[in-house]
Amino acid sequence: MRKVNVEEKFAQFEETWSPRIVAELNGQHVKVARLQGEFVWHAHEHEDELFWVVRGRLTLRFRDGEQTLGPGELIVVPRGVEHLPVCEEETWVVLFEPASTVNTGTAGGERTVTDLPRL
Amino acid sequence: MRKVNVEEKFAQFEETWSPRIVAELNGQHVKVARLQGEFVWHAHEHEDELFWVVRGRLTLRFRDGEQTLGPGELIVVPRGVEHLPVCEEETWVVLFEPASTVNTGTAGGERTVTDLPRL
Repeated sequence: MRKVNVEEKFAQFEETWSPRIVAELNGQHVKVARLQGEFVWHAHEHEDELFWVVRGRLTLRFRDGEQTLGPGELIVVPRGVEHLPVCEEETWVVLFEPASTVNTGTAGGERTVTDLPRL
Repeated sequence: MRKVNVEEKFAQFEETWSPRIVAELNGQHVKVARLQGEFVWHAHEHEDELFWVVRGRLTLRFRDGEQTLGPGELIVVPRGVEHLPVCEEETWVVLFEPASTVNTGTAGGERTVTDLPRL
């Protein structure tokens, strides 16, 4: 059992939109992801997803509005809710979600990443 | 669906060792707790528990050692592992754990709190 320094984990990779797993508990993963630019519209059929911004600014667009989060802010996107993450600047985000969660949800496509590395 | 500013949630109460629920997802709760002094030795039979330090310093004593965490550090205490949280100074901690988790685990006793408030 070892503690995790979150910033040190972010420093171990540079790729954006490619989450890394840093902890696991109760069938959930804690992931770190660097985001920049626009992702793809998607939803997760069975998973609620938590975004916690550590650095930068994350806008989550929804079909009926949007929310912008800065450092120290978090949000839960319920299962089934379509969302589009957008970051003008490079943004560091911690994700809490079930181990079954795929980054592009039911949308799939070329931005999909599987077999996430563990840091 | 509204974002949560974590520091603002901590500012809404002063009581120590009395977690507040700030978000819920996938049967898990995200809680904020102010800690100061020594808690009680306990374990959770069925729940892994994540501690994320936002402010201050948290020492988790285990039967075979200890870990001390500062801001931006997290740790997962697996189910069944006895632990004793100790904070010399007031420390702000975010907890991520199943909704079924009781603060004193199987130890029970007067430090047990139930029906946690939601902020």
